[in-house]
Amino acid sequence: MEVGIIIIIINIIMEMMRKYNNIKLFATDVDGVLTDAGMYYDNKKNELKKFNTKDSIGFNFLKTLNIPTIIITSENTNIVKRRAEKLKIKDCFLGIKNKLELCLKVCKKYKISIDEVAFIGDEINDLELIKKVGLSACPSDAAGYIKKNASWVLNKKGGEGVFREFVIKYLKATNQYNQALNKSINFYKQVD
Amino acid sequence: MEVGIIIIIINIIMEMMRKYNNIKLFATDVDGVLTDAGMYYDNKKNELKKFNTKDSIGFNFLKTLNIPTIIITSENTNIVKRRAEKLKIKDCFLGIKNKLELCLKVCKKYKISIDEVAFIGDEINDLELIKKVGLSACPSDAAGYIKKNASWVLNKKGGEGVFREFVIKYLKATNQYNQALNKSINFYKQVD
Amino acid sequence: MEVGIIIIIINIIMEMMRKYNNIKLFATDVDGVLTDAGMYYDNKKNELKKFNTKDSIGFNFLKTLNIPTIIITSENTNIVKRRAEKLKIKDCFLGIKNKLELCLKVCKKYKISIDEVAFIGDEINDLELIKKVGLSACPSDAAGYIKKNASWVLNKKGGEGVFREFVIKYLKATNQYNQALNKSINFYKQVD
Amino acid sequence: MEVGIIIIIINIIMEMMRKYNNIKLFATDVDGVLTDAGMYYDNKKNELKKFNTKDSIGFNFLKTLNIPTIIITSENTNIVKRRAEKLKIKDCFLGIKNKLELCLKVCKKYKISIDEVAFIGDEINDLELIKKVGLSACPSDAAGYIKKNASWVLNKKGGEGVFREFVIKYLKATNQYNQALNKSINFYKQVD
Repeated sequence: MEVGIIIIIINIIMEMMRKYNNIKLFATDVDGVLTDAGMYYDNKKNELKKFNTKDSIGFNFLKTLNIPTIIITSENTNIVKRRAEKLKIKDCFLGIKNKLELCLKVCKKYKISIDEVAFIGDEINDLELIKKVGLSACPSDAAGYIKKNASWVLNKKGGEGVFREFVIKYLKATNQYNQALNKSINFYKQVD
Repeated sequence: MEVGIIIIIINIIMEMMRKYNNIKLFATDVDGVLTDAGMYYDNKKNELKKFNTKDSIGFNFLKTLNIPTIIITSENTNIVKRRAEKLKIKDCFLGIKNKLELCLKVCKKYKISIDEVAFIGDEINDLELIKKVGLSACPSDAAGYIKKNASWVLNKKGGEGVFREFVIKYLKATNQYNQALNKSINFYKQVD
Repeated sequence: MEVGIIIIIINIIMEMMRKYNNIKLFATDVDGVLTDAGMYYDNKKNELKKFNTKDSIGFNFLKTLNIPTIIITSENTNIVKRRAEKLKIKDCFLGIKNKLELCLKVCKKYKISIDEVAFIGDEINDLELIKKVGLSACPSDAAGYIKKNASWVLNKKGGEGVFREFVIKYLKATNQYNQALNKSINFYKQVD
Repeated sequence: MEVGIIIIIINIIMEMMRKYNNIKLFATDVDGVLTDAGMYYDNKKNELKKFNTKDSIGFNFLKTLNIPTIIITSENTNIVKRRAEKLKIKDCFLGIKNKLELCLKVCKKYKISIDEVAFIGDEINDLELIKKVGLSACPSDAAGYIKKNASWVLNKKGGEGVFREFVIKYLKATNQYNQALNKSINFYKQVD
């Protein structure tokens, strides 16, 4: 390989590193990311979604590093609200058709730029936001047009703990993983 | 290969293309197609089915092209009715034993022929309809006698978004995919 | 191969065929056979099991050939009762610890011998019955000691339609499959 | 191989055997071990977990050998309480943040040492306990830092009957399997 090419590659990597280190907000879609896209309907007026407690570790890791997380979904349901409460996520946006527009508003509130947002989504209504954020990811079973546009196509499917995989991959890429892990371990060492 | 054989093959392909382009109605079974055939029973009088929100994109793509969709199931349950309402599908036929007969009636109403219908099913009660429609499909885990008779055996299993796979395969085969995709993307760009 | 060995093999096969042709009753366990062994508990006093509608075709095939089916489970729950009602199975035995003893009583009532019973189970409480019936089967994910004792280890896991696989394998082995299939197809051709 | 190395290996094995034979208490985590980490939320205030009845055989095997079992979970929910009642497990500890501390208290009550405890867990809050017990295990889909620290990484995932796999592996390693199996078989031979 020529020296010139190596320099170019190093520059690309450093540019990527720079961006990732700047992430100041994590955002996630719900159906197909925190769930396997399943929607359970019953005979009455109830509905269920199946979340994965493995993802809660991802949310916790970000909390130990003081990186806020938001949820953005086009669905408008109590289910997501309750899950967000359990995960202690304050900003949970339901019934959002235009996710990019919403995220830009949130950026204003947080006084950050869209380049400083990391987002994971799997479907057509996530596409515009995936194209614009600083770091984007999708589950391995996301739609084709999403996979083409996401920075990272992850190994796990939606509902298998793919949000956690996203967070850990980011923390490792930015050398923050051990810090987050140790803080979490210490949390559970405390006397009740 | 001889020229004669090539011409025959081209004719077969063109005939298939012609038929597919003529599809004016999509019809789908429920259990084993929109679900993985699972039926959840509880201790009281309730029952659940698990749908996949990935399929909703398939329904949306057809809507952008003004192709109507109907649901035909032998089951008679509120669950399917509610799912159809969520998907904004008006014609949802419950408790149907003879699906071919029902579909012929619908064709009359829509003033189309059975050749202009695309149908996806997985079980023995779908067999007669699968044999008669212009384009038929089944999930990869359909019964053997269904797989033998369907135009397309798809890659996904029931409940994994196989209806969506069916629609996308059809749209690609008839060069309508990019049009449907772009219309859908634009829909989500609108300001809320 | 020597002629003597060939004759022995033919005798074994014919003996097997004879037995299978004599099956006059099918019996099935529930958890781990009709389900994937999953037991859903909620926060209140409710519980769910997930059945597979693919199995209902197995029950229907037996019905077309006038072979009765019974359900035997150690669990004592309304869930199984409701599923049996849906499948139109009259004899559904709940809370049975000693399944062999129960089955011998049923044989007396039906005036058949235990050799004329086909049974599918997956767990330790199915073992004695599996050893005694004329034809026994288990899902591919059954316990090791069951797999060693069952006549047939089937390809499907519990809850994937393994009862249906059992019935179809039996019907094919005894040349009754096409008859059952055609009767079922004709059933769905009737005008509603 | 030299004689010295062989002696070292034999010593290691004997040491392992000694420890395992001393197990006087089994402890298990819930989410991700007895379940696949799934948490089902509905529209109202209900929640579900999916257990696997295959695990109940593991609990039964231990009971036939008079080895007590306890459940330790950080979750505080009726769901686990009901499951413990069904499995006839008396000591079910809910809402436990520091699992090691809790387990040490239980050891005092049972007058055993932490070396005589076998524990299976899958997540960061199980780590300290996994490091300290005499025999530890985790499902094949446990977190990386857990897999590194557990004595045994089992073949099954959480919710697939991995607790049962843990118990059977332990019973086989200590030559107690046939005894437990025969006692269980005889239990089901009793007349109702």
